[in-house]
Amino acid sequence: MNSTLTDKICKPTLILDEAKARQNLKTMADKAAVQGIRFRPHFKTHQSAQIGEWFRAAGVEAITVSSLSMAEYFAGHGWEDILVAFLANLREMDTIRRLAGKVRLGLLVESERVVKVLDENLSDKVDIWIKIDTGLHRAGIDHRDVKTVRQLAQVIQHSPQLNLRGLLTHAGQTYHAHSTEEIRKMYAASCSAMQGLREALQADGIGELEISVGDTPGCCLSDDLGGMDEIRPGNFIFFDAMMLELGVCALEDIAVAVACPVVAVHPDQGEVIVYGGAVHLSKEALDHNGQTIYGFTAFPAQDGWRFAGKQNYVKATSQEHGIVKLQPEEMKDIREGDLLYILPVHSCLAVDELGEYLTMQGERIPTMLSCD
Amino acid sequence: MNSTLTDKICKPTLILDEAKARQNLKTMADKAAVQGIRFRPHFKTHQSAQIGEWFRAAGVEAITVSSLSMAEYFAGHGWEDILVAFLANLREMDTIRRLAGKVRLGLLVESERVVKVLDENLSDKVDIWIKIDTGLHRAGIDHRDVKTVRQLAQVIQHSPQLNLRGLLTHAGQTYHAHSTEEIRKMYAASCSAMQGLREALQADGIGELEISVGDTPGCCLSDDLGGMDEIRPGNFIFFDAMMLELGVCALEDIAVAVACPVVAVHPDQGEVIVYGGAVHLSKEALDHNGQTIYGFTAFPAQDGWRFAGKQNYVKATSQEHGIVKLQPEEMKDIREGDLLYILPVHSCLAVDELGEYLTMQGERIPTMLSCD
Repeated sequence: MNSTLTDKICKPTLILDEAKARQNLKTMADKAAVQGIRFRPHFKTHQSAQIGEWFRAAGVEAITVSSLSMAEYFAGHGWEDILVAFLANLREMDTIRRLAGKVRLGLLVESERVVKVLDENLSDKVDIWIKIDTGLHRAGIDHRDVKTVRQLAQVIQHSPQLNLRGLLTHAGQTYHAHSTEEIRKMYAASCSAMQGLREALQADGIGELEISVGDTPGCCLSDDLGGMDEIRPGNFIFFDAMMLELGVCALEDIAVAVACPVVAVHPDQGEVIVYGGAVHLSKEALDHNGQTIYGFTAFPAQDGWRFAGKQNYVKATSQEHGIVKLQPEEMKDIREGDLLYILPVHSCLAVDELGEYLTMQGERIPTMLSCD
Repeated sequence: MNSTLTDKICKPTLILDEAKARQNLKTMADKAAVQGIRFRPHFKTHQSAQIGEWFRAAGVEAITVSSLSMAEYFAGHGWEDILVAFLANLREMDTIRRLAGKVRLGLLVESERVVKVLDENLSDKVDIWIKIDTGLHRAGIDHRDVKTVRQLAQVIQHSPQLNLRGLLTHAGQTYHAHSTEEIRKMYAASCSAMQGLREALQADGIGELEISVGDTPGCCLSDDLGGMDEIRPGNFIFFDAMMLELGVCALEDIAVAVACPVVAVHPDQGEVIVYGGAVHLSKEALDHNGQTIYGFTAFPAQDGWRFAGKQNYVKATSQEHGIVKLQPEEMKDIREGDLLYILPVHSCLAVDELGEYLTMQGERIPTMLSCD
């Protein structure tokens, strides 16, 4: 990034390395294509119609979102096959109806009551996915509870508006794994649990069911995607400090950083204060060798940012402040008015906080959260 | 809140009890007035021009903000005495210059280098406050380091554009206190450290200096505001779960809650899943008896929300999901499509995430983050 561009950065700014993001996208799209698996990327990470076009150019036709608001935004930007991978919210029935009349809409359910209300309120056909819990224990029916899933499947099949499309899981327990090997095992176990459930349901006379899986750690680290019908990773487009720490990506794969102005330098404490806090980075933290950190710190460089080790990190944040710990050799040339680059712990949340990107070429890319 | 209004809530929505907020405001304004202390409330909590008018009606003329963007917003809404209680960011010199020509602008500094750059770049006069550390250890010069403060004060006094107004501290260590008594002691110690520093500086020939202090815990719990020149609390207007946990406010003082639709009910786990996650509540957490919580949970009631104990809380959040733990007696009538009310851990961050309010009377109140 040349200095004419960085000189213009005066507030916390989400810098996007487009080349890295496009490479991350290509890697995942190629992997899915080779294995004949539908690639339905999760757009909650980038929330941007313009970045969505990069996916379209890579052959993507079906997408995942995490809210009906996001579904409406992307439906308004030409996406016609949208899965809302969040349990159907009955309070947004008007939006569901509107979307069902416009695109191929996929909804997620886990209870008969919700299925009945959908059945009573919809006039256009929607795809229904049953949410299955394969170990995250957030939502969904336990994969071993074949009886409950079968019963729900039958209720869905009974409705003329509801097309029982398949079984869906989010094996997000991989985010809590302690090694890349454990992530691979969790991913494989989740796929195998889903296969087992599908077979049991088919033996019970429930017809064809697709299986949708796909967290970023599992999809990145597993060479074999387990013969699933579709994968839904999202974070892989940018990665972040969390993915780096988990061993899911290499340092050079991280495609976003938050450029933050330095407002104070405290050599005695080995700290600098940046304009860049909870409302820019989010309060997401990770544990690095027993230290809670809010992002790793990198330094301005011609090609974006230069990483100088995990000993340079954000130690604490308040609403607008970040306290950055720096090694003495990195500290010595820092002045008030300089920029530091923070690799956020969770890129999805940093995008949501900042709401727009600045590319290394100086192009501003809006998201659905931008006001213009 | 009548059911015609709550029926319209379909997404996570920041509900504001205006009567409670105005009462909180009156309590603090009266306390400052009785003690003859300037009340310069921190507007980073509400970020709303409309709510700002409630303060104006209560006699407030001077305000605090945490960014130059916020200063510009409120300057555009008729505020003429604005202190940016965040270390001056040299990368926003154009904004500083613009504001200095328009309002009585207060800036915060802790280093000679920044003072020199300000001096070289400003043509209109600004107030300068020296940031003092009285125990938070985030920013500022240690209050015992009279020599450094004196030297900086002299450099400031040397500049025709810079008006050395006084000494400022944020005793935010009160947020980490273990009792209300400890908060009172911390507040008193901070005031006394500031008095001591001022006296030492005056003995050294530095002229009149004002003292600005004021975190919400200290200002709420201390009957005696310590004879300071001004206080700058912000959070007190709404309070939140953190202030409740610290014993700073009573339950009935909390003036905001995030209404969240229920999307799943899991009686066996004693949990429900709500549409309401990190992008609505923020990831701010507190420790309640060893349990990390992301908000306390309350229930719909005619007059807003009904609290039924701290055993009802948000156990975890992801981007859009909240996992809520409920006691069995609260669990039994909950259905998908119901609303729960989350008392956020940190109201300032929830406001920043949600960007607008809905009052109990159904009025929408925008903030500087609203797009329209």
